[in-house]
Amino acid sequence: MANKKITGRDIDFAKWYTDVVNAAKLSRYSNVKGCIILEPNGYAIWENIQKNLDRMFKESGHKNVAMPMLIPESLMKKEGELIEGFAPEAAWVTMGGSKTLEERMCIRPTSETLFSDYFADVVGSYRDLPLKYNQWCSVMRWEKETRPFLRSREFWWQEGHTVHETAEEAETETRNMLKTYETFFRDYLAIPVISGKKTEKEKFAGAEYTLTIEALMYNGVSLQSGTSHYFGQKFSKAYDIKFLNRANEYEFAYQTSWGVSSRMIGALIMVHGDDDGLVLPPKIAPVQVRIIPIKCEDEVLKLCEEYYRKLKEAGIAVELDDNVDTSAGFKFAESEVLGVPARIEVGMRDLENGQITLARRDTKEKLQISKDADIVAEIQSLLAKIQDNLLKKATERRDGMTYEAKNIDEFSNLMNNTPGFIKADWCGDPECELKIKEIRGTKSRCILEGQKPLTGKCVVCGKTAKDLVLWGIQY
Amino acid sequence: MANKKITGRDIDFAKWYTDVVNAAKLSRYSNVKGCIILEPNGYAIWENIQKNLDRMFKESGHKNVAMPMLIPESLMKKEGELIEGFAPEAAWVTMGGSKTLEERMCIRPTSETLFSDYFADVVGSYRDLPLKYNQWCSVMRWEKETRPFLRSREFWWQEGHTVHETAEEAETETRNMLKTYETFFRDYLAIPVISGKKTEKEKFAGAEYTLTIEALMYNGVSLQSGTSHYFGQKFSKAYDIKFLNRANEYEFAYQTSWGVSSRMIGALIMVHGDDDGLVLPPKIAPVQVRIIPIKCEDEVLKLCEEYYRKLKEAGIAVELDDNVDTSAGFKFAESEVLGVPARIEVGMRDLENGQITLARRDTKEKLQISKDADIVAEIQSLLAKIQDNLLKKATERRDGMTYEAKNIDEFSNLMNNTPGFIKADWCGDPECELKIKEIRGTKSRCILEGQKPLTGKCVVCGKTAKDLVLWGIQY
Repeated sequence: MANKKITGRDIDFAKWYTDVVNAAKLSRYSNVKGCIILEPNGYAIWENIQKNLDRMFKESGHKNVAMPMLIPESLMKKEGELIEGFAPEAAWVTMGGSKTLEERMCIRPTSETLFSDYFADVVGSYRDLPLKYNQWCSVMRWEKETRPFLRSREFWWQEGHTVHETAEEAETETRNMLKTYETFFRDYLAIPVISGKKTEKEKFAGAEYTLTIEALMYNGVSLQSGTSHYFGQKFSKAYDIKFLNRANEYEFAYQTSWGVSSRMIGALIMVHGDDDGLVLPPKIAPVQVRIIPIKCEDEVLKLCEEYYRKLKEAGIAVELDDNVDTSAGFKFAESEVLGVPARIEVGMRDLENGQITLARRDTKEKLQISKDADIVAEIQSLLAKIQDNLLKKATERRDGMTYEAKNIDEFSNLMNNTPGFIKADWCGDPECELKIKEIRGTKSRCILEGQKPLTGKCVVCGKTAKDLVLWGIQY
Repeated sequence: MANKKITGRDIDFAKWYTDVVNAAKLSRYSNVKGCIILEPNGYAIWENIQKNLDRMFKESGHKNVAMPMLIPESLMKKEGELIEGFAPEAAWVTMGGSKTLEERMCIRPTSETLFSDYFADVVGSYRDLPLKYNQWCSVMRWEKETRPFLRSREFWWQEGHTVHETAEEAETETRNMLKTYETFFRDYLAIPVISGKKTEKEKFAGAEYTLTIEALMYNGVSLQSGTSHYFGQKFSKAYDIKFLNRANEYEFAYQTSWGVSSRMIGALIMVHGDDDGLVLPPKIAPVQVRIIPIKCEDEVLKLCEEYYRKLKEAGIAVELDDNVDTSAGFKFAESEVLGVPARIEVGMRDLENGQITLARRDTKEKLQISKDADIVAEIQSLLAKIQDNLLKKATERRDGMTYEAKNIDEFSNLMNNTPGFIKADWCGDPECELKIKEIRGTKSRCILEGQKPLTGKCVVCGKTAKDLVLWGIQY
């Protein structure tokens, strides 16, 4: 039954991934090196992600804005760590029309500098605070190796940028936005994540600290899926964002930033997909149900159209595939490749028995129900079950691939043979992080805050452990 | 009563415009030369524009995609007229990280080249057609003089790009999308437009022909507000977009493109705004109603909150301004500057008489209604009246400023003394267009298709007229 255009997931995972992206027509490489095109099926998923996340941002008092896409070099350089982190992968505009620019500008790799420059202009008093802004845009990082959705020179994302009166309020914002991401991943993408703090080595250039959500893909490789940064006064000092505080004194403001990107589409593919293609959680699927007439006979079509109308009126994203040029088998396969969560099959033989068939994309189960059943209630209930099941399966798989290592041999054995997340103690020394990187490039994913060390000794050097850390191979 | 921060509209229109943009906090210049920032109030209008237009596009079968923001020079050059038109204002990326690129790339000024390159890859047979795509993005044109929303180096827009099997179908699409813009301007922005065909001199570089909608601003200056281009086979031949037609022969495809931009926000300001600030049509206003307690007394606040709840539940965009630090007068003025269409004022004195006050932004009228009236029905009816009135007023003003000129003296007198739209006959010779440009830079806005000439003789040279043309000074 498996789709012939798709390599087996257990045979060659990288090839499987590319095959699914192509077969589901999500994206393709453009003739602009390292840049992808989001095709209609991929962009529709991105639109659903945007719609739901944007609502969550607005409910927590955030407003959307748009900043310029170019950053003059001098503005970029004001904060020393940031430019150091991003200069190697900046795309530089040096000419406007036929003239060489007096100062070159880079295409934004991220917009802390632009937001900070703006905040310096508009923040005067504590009465102006907090400012809680967000922007949806694309950014550019001149990567060498690229992969659709996971790493490309241009990618699509949202970046939140906020300014606060106190460190405490800014730190609360940093944590709240990480929680928003956690919730979105769990409730919409059906992807369980592990949250924690990045080590010094892995934090965002210019942040006091970085919080992260980490997800595990089917093949045991981890994906940094969203980050939330606390800046303290680093940027406000570099960009002179001062406000008159309640004691009537000038004080540098406290800032945060946070972002998730089109990389989430990569996570959806690699967490839920199978040998037949994409599997989309109902709450993010552009098409939730496809109605497929086995043959386009009048009686069949009439019922299909009635279902279509009812489901559409109930706000369910439904399509009726009544193309007369393709067979039912072709239609089934196509709906599976695209990851449509549920399918309604209507055929004459079933109808004679007063029945129709519902098919689940996630389990491939088929169940027959009365043709006169309340189709809206049936589908709503089925979609809810699929959504729950996808999260449950992904959580079980993730938990089954999350190990503990008490010493470096255990660590190395696990990562070489059954890669996944490894929890292990760490002394806090970057040298030990580098040692672990020698094992298949494994990096610290995050410090598991508030969790007790396993042995109390660093898994590398044996010195006293500072933290329990989650480790993994990364995309 | 006029806002002190805003210069009179009849005193200095250019300064009035800038003052309104600033006072309503729509946008401000960034420190990136020629690039603006869309602040929350401006971006919220853009979001409402996007939401409604996007729905209209989807209802007519268009799908959203995302193309790269960079165009390699060689790709840009394949269609000769396009590169000629856009090269003088292209921003060029010449370095990635510390390396000089082998081939420079420009930031998209428009994306015909990228879409055509993509279409060449994916179009194989007439069965693949039509492809009806759209993208929302920002584009870059290295302009010298800039003005918020009207002309800036970076601006936000949508660009539709479609491919068809026949010239006829593509031409129908070109006209349908112009009609979509007309409808959107009339029904949402409350702006009447005049539609027609651009002259050869004014058409889009690379198009067979360009259709346009033209709006007239308060000061008699016209604004090209949206365009729809028919490409015929120009791009398909340059980019090799061939398909196997129904006769089983290869044929070059037929294309269109069409776009409107953040310039529409400038049109909203200049068509509806007044000396107190912005005036927004209810169907596009981010906030449709503000409830303002005269003083924040318990009984007043209780009623305000009840109204707020009821209006919100009815899907009306409502805000309750219960800030205790500002006076009612300040709140009234602020709601007027922002262009909020309607205001509910609740005060103790009114309440003692069982009444509340509704205030209209467009006419400044106030009317008292019973505090127990059906507030949702009252507001819905008031918003509908405001929407209608804005279109009516704008249409009357536009009609009053649309003249006919039978000879060049009449033409020149009108444009020098009471500028607006002028209808005048034209022979079709670009030399005559250039002559007219000598009169305050007046350009042809569009050829009024299907309308009879006034005199039958060109207003410039006196030779036989080919078309009746609409002329105007432009932004």
